[in-house]
This record gives sequence, structure tokens and C-alpha cells, in this order.
Amino acid sequence: MFKHGEAADHGHWGPPFLLYLGGAADDLAIKTARGLAYWRPEWCIGQYRDPECRPTLGLPDMEPAQASAAGANTMVIGTASAGGVMARQTVADIITALNANLNVISGLHEKLRDNADIVAAATRNGRTLFDAREYAQRIPVGSGRKRAGQRLLTIGTDCSVGKMYTTLAIERCMRKRGLKADFRATGQTGIFIAGAGIPVDAVIADFISGAAELISPAREDDGWDLIEGQGSLFHPSYAGVSLGLLHGSQPDALVLCHELTRQHMRGLPGYPLPGLASCLEANLIAARLTNPAVKAVGIALNTSNVSERAAHAACREIAERLDLPCEDPVTMGVESIVDNLLSCCAH
Amino acid sequence: MFKHGEAADHGHWGPPFLLYLGGAADDLAIKTARGLAYWRPEWCIGQYRDPECRPTLGLPDMEPAQASAAGANTMVIGTASAGGVMARQTVADIITALNANLNVISGLHEKLRDNADIVAAATRNGRTLFDAREYAQRIPVGSGRKRAGQRLLTIGTDCSVGKMYTTLAIERCMRKRGLKADFRATGQTGIFIAGAGIPVDAVIADFISGAAELISPAREDDGWDLIEGQGSLFHPSYAGVSLGLLHGSQPDALVLCHELTRQHMRGLPGYPLPGLASCLEANLIAARLTNPAVKAVGIALNTSNVSERAAHAACREIAERLDLPCEDPVTMGVESIVDNLLSCCAH
Repeated sequence: MFKHGEAADHGHWGPPFLLYLGGAADDLAIKTARGLAYWRPEWCIGQYRDPECRPTLGLPDMEPAQASAAGANTMVIGTASAGGVMARQTVADIITALNANLNVISGLHEKLRDNADIVAAATRNGRTLFDAREYAQRIPVGSGRKRAGQRLLTIGTDCSVGKMYTTLAIERCMRKRGLKADFRATGQTGIFIAGAGIPVDAVIADFISGAAELISPAREDDGWDLIEGQGSLFHPSYAGVSLGLLHGSQPDALVLCHELTRQHMRGLPGYPLPGLASCLEANLIAARLTNPAVKAVGIALNTSNVSERAAHAACREIAERLDLPCEDPVTMGVESIVDNLLSCCAH
Repeated sequence: MFKHGEAADHGHWGPPFLLYLGGAADDLAIKTARGLAYWRPEWCIGQYRDPECRPTLGLPDMEPAQASAAGANTMVIGTASAGGVMARQTVADIITALNANLNVISGLHEKLRDNADIVAAATRNGRTLFDAREYAQRIPVGSGRKRAGQRLLTIGTDCSVGKMYTTLAIERCMRKRGLKADFRATGQTGIFIAGAGIPVDAVIADFISGAAELISPAREDDGWDLIEGQGSLFHPSYAGVSLGLLHGSQPDALVLCHELTRQHMRGLPGYPLPGLASCLEANLIAARLTNPAVKAVGIALNTSNVSERAAHAACREIAERLDLPCEDPVTMGVESIVDNLLSCCAH
């Protein structure tokens, strides 16, 4: 049997996936499902949504029973709802999926396993439930000890600027070149894609850097661990997570991610974004605590809100100003960033 | 009835206290009990320890029944054991205390409420259990919004350098001068002393700065919140906690704490301590994100491992070099630090 991810009870879940959109109100609400469909289209055989749901991933609409007959293994709750709570209809749809012999995985704050009806349906059908925002195994305190292997971490001027996309684009680019490189997931969408990882913002505060050490352990095969960053050192709500992740990752290389038109820190109109140079400098200073040899190797610019022409102009301007390759990983790729990584950092 | 602290089930616990030492092996193992006995001697009526226990707080030895007859309200599990786990004898002693009508509070990692025998004895006797390393109420995400009031935060070159002692010494000094000033606890010993607080290293990583905002809310009475710091920006295991606490506290004033003879970061022989000046500078830069007006107002030096003469010489040298008052809060007090605080920061 295909082994993808493990639930805390050591059942397995994995592709092929049916992506649950439910009654999602807008595109932002299906961000997790979209990430999975974008990065692993070959794993996503259909979407399951309410008749009145307008957002779409362009996948065939399927009921759980149809998806199961078509070979689906797992239904992914890929919607974000207000407060992360499951609507009554969502609970009913999850039970329908379990009754159709699908496993169910979720990135919501409200846990599948905290709902007695869902747990009963899973038990009755012998199905696996997996909550990606939970990490049940013991995490050690960070040791700060230098470990073998090469690691890259994506960092950001803000939350939600493209750190996961950038990290996955670098993995794809390096693998195409025949290099050993593994995406290490730190958030729920990344965990669905990788089949493993730790949701670092959901661990106990004392163990943030320990979690980063755990997801990117020593490796002796000359390969790279590519670690998905979270938050920003300049976000007043979440900077502790970003700093612990930076220290625990002991990165050899940093890639700074930025969204070109962002007006203020996410959710906080009073907080302007940091400048790219000062953001990079602050991250380098902090990262040197656990790896004095850390280097910045590129800038990943999310240019989705500007014209192609403006995007290229912005990349040229930033590349020149910071003396680092600058690209939009989605529209331009990350070839020049990977070139620079290999010339700067590889043994 | 005296209202001191609240347990998650909203029973109350508080002084007078019986301090449990059990079979503690050395002085380090009774650190929590010693902090309570040092700062609140009037609340501590006795100590309860095994016949072969050598460490002592100099309090009368009492069995729970004697302590209860003498007016004790609560027994404090003030020992640190390997891995934070309760020995079988400790469990039996806790049940003896509950049967003697004492409430029981603990700072161990292993929770009182996770032990079925302890919970049964508490229920049977109508007693309150309180685990200080747990925080059951909902914590909001940090908002970063400026709030009314004045706040001081103690920061450190390392863990365990005297941040709690310094914060409490400043509270005592300010109150003696007739100023409004309140210690805000962020660790278990501080929570026992204050009767309230949040163990910030035990909250979910996304909520560190939110926890700091919660324990030092807006105040309009011209008083000061004095927030107990945790960890160090330079400790690779715990810096995330320190940064979140720094951002959420929005401190107007920082006091840097340092232990004079510390050879390396706690538990990490490979990591030297940061210099005082660069540690202060890194904290000021990070703190400016949420309070651009933050100032350093003093250095609190733990000189317990050197002679009185060497201690005074070190304070003079540091005060001159950093142009800030420098004192040992335990042996010298904090008068000059409070003088500087009031002249620098008070409205």
C-alpha cells in the first residue's frame, strides 16, 4: 500500500485526493486545496463542493462515493472558515466521506478527533483521521548542536507572501537538475503535500527550535533540506515562531520572500512592511547564532498583483539593489536563485 | 475568604503555604520553593520533606495535618525532579495533603490533574488542584496595538540569571516609594507569588505575544506593569519565547539581567554568552517594532558567585562602560535602576 502520511494513531492517509471545498465563500477560503492542486495535480482527482459554491479548482465535481469508486484514498478538508470551526454541513459531509471509505485529513483549528460523530464514523468504517494542526509526538528542546547536511530556509517580510510556493519551486528545480533536495513542511498545506512535517506555529513555545531540528535532521547524503518558513521577524504577532524556526533550522542559505504590493503587515494596518535589505540583515544576524556561515542567496518576489512588465522591472531593480537574484517563483521560476545557491553554498 | 489564585476549575488556592520539598537532592531542586520563601516569607508557614532530605529553607518541618491545623491553605509542589515527573512518594504525599484539607499547586511538567488518584482525592475532599505550567483559558493572537499604561520588561543574556528576582525587587522598591507597580508573572514560581500570570513558555507558539498582551493589559492609573522576562534572544533553544514576550510586552523600559560568572549559555557548552552591550542593542532593536520609544534603564547583575568586593567592582565597571546603573538586586537593591527608570520614562 502507498505510504504517504501518518496519523497520530498510525493509520495512513495519502493520495489520490478528493479536495473538499464545501460552501467556500471565496478564493482565499480554498487556499489549502489550491496549494495541493497546484503542486500535486497528479494526486487530485476531484473536488467536492456544495451546489451553490462558486470557487473552483477546475477539477471534476464528485461526491465521495464517486471519488472512492474512481480510486480516491483521502478527502482533504482544504477550506478555511471563520475561526477555523467546522460548519454543521461540513461535519455531515465528512461523515459521508468516511462512510464512502475515504480517509479524512484537515488543516482546521477545530480538530476532527474532537468531534464525537466524526470519530464514531471513522471507527465504524476503519478509516484514518488526521489533523495537520496537531502534533502528538514528543518534541525535544532545541539543542543548538551543529548537524550534518545542507539546509535552506525561506523567510519573509510578512506572513502569506509565498514561502511555501518558493520552497516547493526550489525543490522542483533542484530535483530537475538531478540534485537531492527535500521540502520540509512546517504548515498544514505543506504537510498535506509532503506527507510529513510539523506545524511549528502549533507547538508549545519552548519547543519551536526543537521542532525545526526534528524536521530537518542530520543528513549525510550531500542533499539539501528545503525548509518552509513561517511568519516574519517583523510581524508582532508571530515573530517568536519565525525566530525559533530560524535558530532550529541552522540554515546555510536564506531566500527572502516578499509580496510586491503588500501595504502593511498582514492583519495590522498600523505596521508597515520592513525594507528588503533591513529584513534580510536582521534575519542574517539572528541566524548567525546557530550557523555563522549563513548566506542570503536570493529574493522570491510574489508579483501576482502587477503586470508582467512591472514584475520584471521590479525583479531587475531589486536584484541590482541587493546584489542577489530576484525572481517570481510561480511565473519566472527559480533557476537563478538555485544557480546562486549552488555557487555560494554547496560543498 | 482570601482570593489569591484561580485554578482552571475556578477553585481558589493561596497562602498560607506549606512548601513541599519531598526528597529533593540539592538546592537547585528546591528553586521554586526557595523563591516563594524568599519573596513571600510571611506566607510560608512550614516545609514538608522526607526524613533523609538535606536541603532546607529553614522553615519549621511539618506534616500536612500539622500545617492544616496551623492554618495552611495550600501545599506547593516546589521541587524540580528529573524530567518533571512525580515520584510515587510525591503522589502519596500529595494525597496525604489533600486528605488533610490542603489545596495543592504544582509547577511540574507532569500535571496533577493527569493523575487519577490525585484527582480522586481532590474531588473526595473538595480541594483545588492547580498546575502552573498549564494555561487553560483562550489566548488571543497578539494584536500589536499600542495600549495605555507603562511597562518594564526584564531581559537576559541567558536563562536563569535573575529576571524574576530583579522584577520583584523593582516592584518592592517602587511600592516602598508609594508608586503603583505590579509584578506580572510569566513562569511558575512567579505565578505562585503573584497568584496569577501565564506560563509563556507553555503556550502554543502562535500565541506568545498574545499571552504577553493578556498579562499586561491597558492600564490608566499611571502605574507600571513589571513583566517577568523569560529566556534570552541569544539562547538557541528558547529565543522565540523571548522575542514574542518582547513584542507583546511593548516595554517602555528594559532592564538587562546577567550572571557574572556564567561561562556559556545554560545547558549549551558550545555557546558563549553575548556581550552586555550587543545583547542590549539586539533587544532594543527588536523591541522598537512594537514600541519605538523603548529605553534601557539598567543592568541587574547576579553576583552570588563572587566576593562582595568583586561584585562592587564589576557593577562600577559595567555602569561606566554602558552608561547605565548596575546593581545586584539581591545584595545591593535596585534604587539606582528605579531612579533612572523614573527620570527616563515616567510621564
